[in-house]
Amino acid sequence: MPSPNGTQNRKAAVIGLGAMGLGMASSLVRAGFDVTGYDIAELALDRLEAAGGRRASSPAKAADGADIVVSVVVNAAQTEAALFGPEGCAAAMPDGAVFVSCATMSPEAARALAARVEGAGRLYLDAPISGGAKRAAEGALTILTSGTPAAFEKARPALAAMAQTVHELGAEPGIAAAFKMINQLLAGVHIAAACEAITFAAKQGLDIGKVYEVITQAAGNSWMFENRVPHVLEGDYTPLSAVNIFTKDLGIIMDMGRAANFPVPMAATALQLFTMTSASGMGRDDDASVARFYARTAGVTLPEKTPKD
Amino acid sequence: MPSPNGTQNRKAAVIGLGAMGLGMASSLVRAGFDVTGYDIAELALDRLEAAGGRRASSPAKAADGADIVVSVVVNAAQTEAALFGPEGCAAAMPDGAVFVSCATMSPEAARALAARVEGAGRLYLDAPISGGAKRAAEGALTILTSGTPAAFEKARPALAAMAQTVHELGAEPGIAAAFKMINQLLAGVHIAAACEAITFAAKQGLDIGKVYEVITQAAGNSWMFENRVPHVLEGDYTPLSAVNIFTKDLGIIMDMGRAANFPVPMAATALQLFTMTSASGMGRDDDASVARFYARTAGVTLPEKTPKD
Repeated sequence: MPSPNGTQNRKAAVIGLGAMGLGMASSLVRAGFDVTGYDIAELALDRLEAAGGRRASSPAKAADGADIVVSVVVNAAQTEAALFGPEGCAAAMPDGAVFVSCATMSPEAARALAARVEGAGRLYLDAPISGGAKRAAEGALTILTSGTPAAFEKARPALAAMAQTVHELGAEPGIAAAFKMINQLLAGVHIAAACEAITFAAKQGLDIGKVYEVITQAAGNSWMFENRVPHVLEGDYTPLSAVNIFTKDLGIIMDMGRAANFPVPMAATALQLFTMTSASGMGRDDDASVARFYARTAGVTLPEKTPKD
Repeated sequence: MPSPNGTQNRKAAVIGLGAMGLGMASSLVRAGFDVTGYDIAELALDRLEAAGGRRASSPAKAADGADIVVSVVVNAAQTEAALFGPEGCAAAMPDGAVFVSCATMSPEAARALAARVEGAGRLYLDAPISGGAKRAAEGALTILTSGTPAAFEKARPALAAMAQTVHELGAEPGIAAAFKMINQLLAGVHIAAACEAITFAAKQGLDIGKVYEVITQAAGNSWMFENRVPHVLEGDYTPLSAVNIFTKDLGIIMDMGRAANFPVPMAATALQLFTMTSASGMGRDDDASVARFYARTAGVTLPEKTPKD
């Protein structure tokens, strides 16, 4: 069946097949791309094959012949390794192919990687993502993008397959990274505030289910309060997004703040709370675990998950 | 015209006729109450008369013969003065009349005032409000309430006239105050975070109008970000809600945290930012002035209001 977007038989590579990358690879397959993927974990490659993609044994092999290489690794260091490390993809990409970089990183890191990729004759799109694993699998992500018109042009069919909303934010790599970091600053502060508030409410003897109901209709609401407090109410800290994501992202905010000589006390305080939660052994748990840190510290009892079956 | 709620000729008093109290008094007049009001400012009394109410020269005179006394002063100390100060209303209220206490205060202060009022044979409803001057004027506030069934029963027609949403949160005064304080903790943190984020975005060279557009569609959004950042974008710090409201309310959170031996680092950091903003001379300006504090501190230029002749 020919694709309406002309993506039939067009080759794309996906580097990093975690919860986000696998969903994005699946969305590309559904849109008609010929998708090859690489991940360090064999299980992730099995899942890619089950979703209709092909496995590769290195970033270079995945990128061989691909017009579009989508990188969905964790941070700038992993992105650099995927590009320029042993069997990195940069040299293997055809001239004029585009590297779509989705990891959250500082604008400075994005600019530096873009300069190296473009210096080697390939295109670079700064393209941090937002929306979680479910929306990745549905092709319904939000993607923040910045880069040259040529990079946009080359990447657009893949973006359309993976995203519901694509924000085109400027012609220079680093702009989209900066937008993403502003979002992460707010998101991190709001999670920490939600956890402080709901545990303080429990300490005050309030019915925290009722607190959730009242606050989500009031001026104290945030997207994160509405999304994360149910984890606390259910006592379910299965990681949908882990505490250590925010020690990482708020750490980048600290670096950006120092570099710009700009104070970020709200983000700094939130970072300390995520770090205390992580240091207490909950780094890989859901980020609503900051509430458990408050509760343990202050001797508050929060709901515990009802065992199933 | 007889009122459908049986409020015709029923006497209500309103103590405190600022932006909120005047709107609430007007809503009571529209619902058919015979409203007498008191405020320290003559101008406020003129406005009450223009809205169809009657002026009184003291809280005691306003409350004389009133079934329902609605107190819309600033804090616990003013509430205590309205009740028990010189020419206070407590002794003037008929036996079995209800005092509807709308000031934001600690649960402990609410419990103490309720005990004194109820010890004197009158009813007390803990009834902090939310929604701003416009919704007060429309009779569309949100009111958080707790108190005895008798207090609810007596107050209900007035609550219906003033509010779109009445949350009945429990049988003891202090519960509603605690819910309000949890909301204020979140609201204060979110304003400070919004101001930190939008000014940091400006420092990063981003188009802050575009940042507003992207964030309000993203996981970094909050009710306060969406509501207050437009003041920054327009450079308009006309006080819809002043910085000093939050130095007060987050100060109450600090007292509650110390009393409960519960750490509130997010609220504590936000309080310091409101205090720095107030100390810099902006205490009576709109609370989005925290962004101006960041901007002045870090040498960032934010939009300035276009003068209107």
